[in-house]
Amino acid sequence: MALLIKNGRIVTATDDYVADILCDEGKIAAIGHDLTAPAGDEVFDATGQFVFPGFIDPHVHIYMEFMGTFAKDDYDSASRAALVGGTTTLIEMCCPSRQEDPLEAFDLWMSKAEGISSCDYTFHMGVTRFDDTTEAKLRTIVDRGITSFKVFLAYKDFFGVNDTELFRTLKLAKELGVVVTAHCENETLIAERQQLLLAEGKTGPEWHEPSRPVQVEAEGVHHLMSFAEATGASVYVVHTSNQPAIEAAMAARARGVDVMLETVIPYLTLDNTYAEQGDFEGAKFVMSPPIRSREHQDYLWNALASGVVSTVATDHAPFDFSAQKEMGRGDFTKIPNGLPSIEDRVNLLYTYGVKRGRIDLHRFVDAASTQAAKRFGLFPRKGTIALGADADLVVYDPTYQGHITVANQQMAADYNPHEGWEIEGRPSLVTVRGEVQVRDGVFEGEAGRGEFLARTLPSTIH
Amino acid sequence: MALLIKNGRIVTATDDYVADILCDEGKIAAIGHDLTAPAGDEVFDATGQFVFPGFIDPHVHIYMEFMGTFAKDDYDSASRAALVGGTTTLIEMCCPSRQEDPLEAFDLWMSKAEGISSCDYTFHMGVTRFDDTTEAKLRTIVDRGITSFKVFLAYKDFFGVNDTELFRTLKLAKELGVVVTAHCENETLIAERQQLLLAEGKTGPEWHEPSRPVQVEAEGVHHLMSFAEATGASVYVVHTSNQPAIEAAMAARARGVDVMLETVIPYLTLDNTYAEQGDFEGAKFVMSPPIRSREHQDYLWNALASGVVSTVATDHAPFDFSAQKEMGRGDFTKIPNGLPSIEDRVNLLYTYGVKRGRIDLHRFVDAASTQAAKRFGLFPRKGTIALGADADLVVYDPTYQGHITVANQQMAADYNPHEGWEIEGRPSLVTVRGEVQVRDGVFEGEAGRGEFLARTLPSTIH
Amino acid sequence: MALLIKNGRIVTATDDYVADILCDEGKIAAIGHDLTAPAGDEVFDATGQFVFPGFIDPHVHIYMEFMGTFAKDDYDSASRAALVGGTTTLIEMCCPSRQEDPLEAFDLWMSKAEGISSCDYTFHMGVTRFDDTTEAKLRTIVDRGITSFKVFLAYKDFFGVNDTELFRTLKLAKELGVVVTAHCENETLIAERQQLLLAEGKTGPEWHEPSRPVQVEAEGVHHLMSFAEATGASVYVVHTSNQPAIEAAMAARARGVDVMLETVIPYLTLDNTYAEQGDFEGAKFVMSPPIRSREHQDYLWNALASGVVSTVATDHAPFDFSAQKEMGRGDFTKIPNGLPSIEDRVNLLYTYGVKRGRIDLHRFVDAASTQAAKRFGLFPRKGTIALGADADLVVYDPTYQGHITVANQQMAADYNPHEGWEIEGRPSLVTVRGEVQVRDGVFEGEAGRGEFLARTLPSTIH
Amino acid sequence: MALLIKNGRIVTATDDYVADILCDEGKIAAIGHDLTAPAGDEVFDATGQFVFPGFIDPHVHIYMEFMGTFAKDDYDSASRAALVGGTTTLIEMCCPSRQEDPLEAFDLWMSKAEGISSCDYTFHMGVTRFDDTTEAKLRTIVDRGITSFKVFLAYKDFFGVNDTELFRTLKLAKELGVVVTAHCENETLIAERQQLLLAEGKTGPEWHEPSRPVQVEAEGVHHLMSFAEATGASVYVVHTSNQPAIEAAMAARARGVDVMLETVIPYLTLDNTYAEQGDFEGAKFVMSPPIRSREHQDYLWNALASGVVSTVATDHAPFDFSAQKEMGRGDFTKIPNGLPSIEDRVNLLYTYGVKRGRIDLHRFVDAASTQAAKRFGLFPRKGTIALGADADLVVYDPTYQGHITVANQQMAADYNPHEGWEIEGRPSLVTVRGEVQVRDGVFEGEAGRGEFLARTLPSTIH
Repeated sequence: MALLIKNGRIVTATDDYVADILCDEGKIAAIGHDLTAPAGDEVFDATGQFVFPGFIDPHVHIYMEFMGTFAKDDYDSASRAALVGGTTTLIEMCCPSRQEDPLEAFDLWMSKAEGISSCDYTFHMGVTRFDDTTEAKLRTIVDRGITSFKVFLAYKDFFGVNDTELFRTLKLAKELGVVVTAHCENETLIAERQQLLLAEGKTGPEWHEPSRPVQVEAEGVHHLMSFAEATGASVYVVHTSNQPAIEAAMAARARGVDVMLETVIPYLTLDNTYAEQGDFEGAKFVMSPPIRSREHQDYLWNALASGVVSTVATDHAPFDFSAQKEMGRGDFTKIPNGLPSIEDRVNLLYTYGVKRGRIDLHRFVDAASTQAAKRFGLFPRKGTIALGADADLVVYDPTYQGHITVANQQMAADYNPHEGWEIEGRPSLVTVRGEVQVRDGVFEGEAGRGEFLARTLPSTIH
Repeated sequence: MALLIKNGRIVTATDDYVADILCDEGKIAAIGHDLTAPAGDEVFDATGQFVFPGFIDPHVHIYMEFMGTFAKDDYDSASRAALVGGTTTLIEMCCPSRQEDPLEAFDLWMSKAEGISSCDYTFHMGVTRFDDTTEAKLRTIVDRGITSFKVFLAYKDFFGVNDTELFRTLKLAKELGVVVTAHCENETLIAERQQLLLAEGKTGPEWHEPSRPVQVEAEGVHHLMSFAEATGASVYVVHTSNQPAIEAAMAARARGVDVMLETVIPYLTLDNTYAEQGDFEGAKFVMSPPIRSREHQDYLWNALASGVVSTVATDHAPFDFSAQKEMGRGDFTKIPNGLPSIEDRVNLLYTYGVKRGRIDLHRFVDAASTQAAKRFGLFPRKGTIALGADADLVVYDPTYQGHITVANQQMAADYNPHEGWEIEGRPSLVTVRGEVQVRDGVFEGEAGRGEFLARTLPSTIH
Repeated sequence: MALLIKNGRIVTATDDYVADILCDEGKIAAIGHDLTAPAGDEVFDATGQFVFPGFIDPHVHIYMEFMGTFAKDDYDSASRAALVGGTTTLIEMCCPSRQEDPLEAFDLWMSKAEGISSCDYTFHMGVTRFDDTTEAKLRTIVDRGITSFKVFLAYKDFFGVNDTELFRTLKLAKELGVVVTAHCENETLIAERQQLLLAEGKTGPEWHEPSRPVQVEAEGVHHLMSFAEATGASVYVVHTSNQPAIEAAMAARARGVDVMLETVIPYLTLDNTYAEQGDFEGAKFVMSPPIRSREHQDYLWNALASGVVSTVATDHAPFDFSAQKEMGRGDFTKIPNGLPSIEDRVNLLYTYGVKRGRIDLHRFVDAASTQAAKRFGLFPRKGTIALGADADLVVYDPTYQGHITVANQQMAADYNPHEGWEIEGRPSLVTVRGEVQVRDGVFEGEAGRGEFLARTLPSTIH
Repeated sequence: MALLIKNGRIVTATDDYVADILCDEGKIAAIGHDLTAPAGDEVFDATGQFVFPGFIDPHVHIYMEFMGTFAKDDYDSASRAALVGGTTTLIEMCCPSRQEDPLEAFDLWMSKAEGISSCDYTFHMGVTRFDDTTEAKLRTIVDRGITSFKVFLAYKDFFGVNDTELFRTLKLAKELGVVVTAHCENETLIAERQQLLLAEGKTGPEWHEPSRPVQVEAEGVHHLMSFAEATGASVYVVHTSNQPAIEAAMAARARGVDVMLETVIPYLTLDNTYAEQGDFEGAKFVMSPPIRSREHQDYLWNALASGVVSTVATDHAPFDFSAQKEMGRGDFTKIPNGLPSIEDRVNLLYTYGVKRGRIDLHRFVDAASTQAAKRFGLFPRKGTIALGADADLVVYDPTYQGHITVANQQMAADYNPHEGWEIEGRPSLVTVRGEVQVRDGVFEGEAGRGEFLARTLPSTIH
């Protein structure tokens, strides 16, 4: 069945115009004025509303064993939450531990999503070990449509790679044309400081940020930059949170390093005072790198507006406050790291970015959709509104006024870090390949119709 | 009459897809598959070719009295040259001297273009004096559709403004929402150094670059940044040529200054050794800021690729070698500053940028068209291919192989600084508001059909 | 008469040892163990005390008409205050207005000191205008023993020079081997911002700092650096107050610019909250550049400890609170700029620098005495304790505990900005060329015995 | 027996005056005019010559097994070479491999020097492993008078420490007040690049520098800075060779990190073209970090002059060209890294630094003697000329003209990297604790009279 969206204000990373969009067979079949739909097909009147390309969250965790527990969402809840919030494509971190076999891990991660996810998805393949057998397995995984890796400079002995592994991963990535995403914090500085703080009786969540200060992250970024420069690999630094970290990347960019930067929505909205709340409330805001001071938040908004930072993701990693975050009461190093925000990213970025005048509409679409599509081989299928693209569309109502609350959320966690925050816009219609999955905040589509997005390596021919 | 362009690969700053484009009544009337044209209308088969939005050159000089002579082109030759090279919109610097009245100057500049230009045009209004009467006149000019100013930190007593004038211009611009473009070089450092060099007998064109080294430009940019920060004005630094100058702007951007950077095609292709050629040949390459070393050129390409530099213009300012550049034989300070490149910018950027792998197709369109349209209030009318936009289109043949030569050029100057340079692409069709002006390198449209583009100030409502 | 100081702990910029010092005929005649004095000569037992070289304040104003009034001290009070505080040499800014003749001004300034000053003195010659007649006059002044100039980038039309004057002053200085000291703030940014603030009703002393924020000073330093680089002149930036300003100088130093940096004692002790006190109390802390935030103060201490900042001066410029500062009630731009601190610099730097562990004893002597002596041609006569040097000595009692208070001060102003501050050390004996001028905080020497220090240009022969 | 040096121009890091120096019982017993020596004691007329404090080389290797061979000098030859060149104190790197016991190693290294060295000596204790037993052993070594450690970020598995070891070493150092010296290069970047180069057939010595480019060293310095900041330890970066490496340290210093920088004489005199000479001649110039381009050399001189770089050492590590360097013919990674320069450092620094106007006499003495004495707990016994200091003196003849040549050298290597270089000064007399060891380039003292310098930790009391 076709879908005709009439009279919406179509806004892409570049364009801004009013037209009708005809979706047919999962694709954008026509964009024009006065289009008509075949009889019996749905016609949606988008007058006065925006039509955005489906948003892409390039950094989420769904199936994840971490710190002795599992992140709370499964693909069913996570993909519903994503869709309700306007996100139609997820890129999940496939994060085996160092002991797991990459191919088995990839199959395991796939099995968690196939037939369950209600939105489309793909993975960054975590390279958490690189030994003699790794290269062949990674080539197989790339052949199966995964064109991006993930490395951790932190979490040694669990996810983390050593320098030789890092070099070889980047070297292989350079050869293949794969982009390497990286979590950049120096492991040892964190581990040693954690011990010192605990020894001093500093055990509450307010000590999480001081246990991994900005320079720990800047050190990680500087380190990755040196390795990227030496190998020529294309890299993507996930969840940059502060000025020195970003400046380390900019200095490398000026030397010719191909680096793209991501930040995540919690860094743009929250600040370190949240984790300093009493009664262990701060645990709700423990993630890594930590949420920084207001000064760094301002810097991030500037960097986002000017394009220094390209993308806004979530690093979605939900843990219940009641049972999971609780594990770290009396020892902040045991608080599972992560926040849920997959559902609220787009609305928050629109409200606190676009409406507050910090970024314009195009930068909004670009950062929350297009840049990720392009960097990770999803474009032109995803990330834009153009003839032939997948009909992943978000009709967005800028007149909506509401509040975020755990009471209404799709995400599985038992709290929402943005509880009570006002939002000034919301998707009124969300489609995945032409099918309506969400109307006015309610998932009413077909569960499990999401598809795995096999990606191909970038051609170097223009 | 309508025009139907079939099967082209449409590439914008964001998109990349194959479709037909129907141009009607000067606008893009439809984009779709299997479009048909009304009987009798032209159908152009663009199979295997790119279709780009008409390119915009946001920094040209056409009517310009400078250093005791006049730039060589008039609007007839300049607009033909622009069109042949794929540029469909010009933004000319309206540069009265300090003694001229701004309103009279604006009328004079308009009179040089109206009915003569074959492509569309608008102006940056030069503010070369700011006294008690200036503000009212500038408001009038803004009302007439000019939403950008130009200031010179160099050329004291002729175009240059002093610090108080600079501050007040920026303050007014901030109030109105006008963007201020700026030539950033410290006047005094140049003037004093020129005297010293001449006194030492260093009179040839090879001394032009050493007379205004990179730090002179970096000083200018730093100065502008301080004033932009103090006033909150939005600025645009024209023709940045080197690393320290750009770094001064980036540091300001990190503090929240709204600054956009331009470079020009000669800096991306030529280097300082060109001006060092003997027999006064170097005079052909004298422009200001000067063309720098290869090291800075590499930096510029990196900065362009990463978006640190937004736009590529020309600073087109043609002077004959035989009679005009000659005025500076024996005294490089008397060589009229400027190079012709309005005709070759797009082909050079495509060949030496896209084809050499330094920038991708989207960055190419963005830098040579879209960014300028957005910064200067021409968007969405210009700068993209979308429904309702002006049908300024460039069908671009990537199979073309040829050479640049003065023998074939439309530009009025008696030499071409890129003489003999290979190009690997060329517009096969260029339209202005739906009318074909150029076919296969030949202007065959209607002379003088270009229109003045009155612009409106940016709304702050999204 | 000779003086023998026994058993002091002699500390210079380099050395630290216990010995006796015999002063004779104004010079250090012997340093050794078990020295004996001729019969009848004074023997001072310095056991348990430091012996430092006489301190030098390279930046003071004594005779100064400024903002419609005169600084409060004359040479009698200023030199007594200096000596009581351990400062034995003053370098005063000779600051004629643009209208005054340099030679006449120099004579005038000399006349204020000769026979009146109780400590030695010399001048930085203010170049507040540079026209055709200036060069010859400056050469004459240099011949008379003045080997340093002073320029102001602020205070346009009064002290300030324009860019051409700046260039020519630096060029002449380079030729002669003269060091140019400079006040670096951009005049226009201040003037325009002052107007805006006053127009908004922001008239109190708390608006002084916001009227000339750190970037205004950084702009000034960057500007001077560009001119110093272009001319090759040796420069000395007076009263640097903040990180961006100092970073601008460091970047230039890395390019080979010969720049030395000074800070002043108020920036190391006070912060911007002092000027924010109510009841116009803040006016006591109005000086330019303004006293900055604690964050910049911390940066200054680091920069001082590592030698990035070389010297600690005062910029002593005392105005009475009751009558003079009062002129600016209701309009902060009319508050005479300046603070008295000539008397307290050494004790404050010792207490809050050395005793608090921020700098060591050698850096203390270096910054408060030796570096200035070397930069300004007073060495080896002044600035150290060595055979043949002038016997300007400070026996310093590190066991003294006391408080600063206007009630006891020698300075003429009716308040002390460090009122009530604790000091943990004090000169117990101060000599000028071998004569005791101060004992235990009391001037008891010969008034007016100070001498003008004619300096010679640095030889380039080693 | 006493020694009286008459009428020399005494130059220290601070002072410059003419006087006599009486040496007695190994100490400077008197400094004065018209001193007389006891009958029978030597009187040396130093008229027209400089008298400098004995120079200190804070970074030498003597007993060193490295890359499968031993450095060529023993303490007999090395100390004679040092003395002939004016160096009276050596600080050797005690570098056990990871497998060796620190206490046994320390005893071994001591045994190589005791009774053999003709000049005084001490050690930096290499921490090449840090396990549960290490701390107690290091405390013992500190108690024996070693107050500085050495760590290697390169040479993994041999000398190199991992991040946890680095952190714990710095933490212990902070607790004790020990300074940690560090070789900063990222091991993995080098190892991987070496493999790639060799695989490409790039096997000659000219590939040594490209195998460890400047960014590899900058990465190492940045890494150390992050760890120093986290622990609060005082660090000293040995042999910095280039701008980015030094800038990484300066950025940390601005954040409050206590870091001192060393460069070495080969970086100030030679450049990368030396290693590019044919016939394997380049192997003579292979050391790590590598000798850089002229551009970095210029930067180093500026950094030295302004005090950004504090000390000039040698990293003396001699290997014979004929037999040892030869091991790396056909594989540059097997060329023993190191150059002999212990004998020529002072003369080269005087000639190419002081005489060429790049540094002044005081900076010369400071960098080659005083700063090291102060940083490493040798002051005031060493590093200056003052009453009570050790009578380590260098009477230096500035009229001497000569050439460096292997034919005359004391160093054991079979070549001299500065062969044929002109020198414009030479020690005419060198004393160690009052005894003449060298006259006019000839060692004629008592072999083996050097003493181990037990050092005490810096007191924090001033």
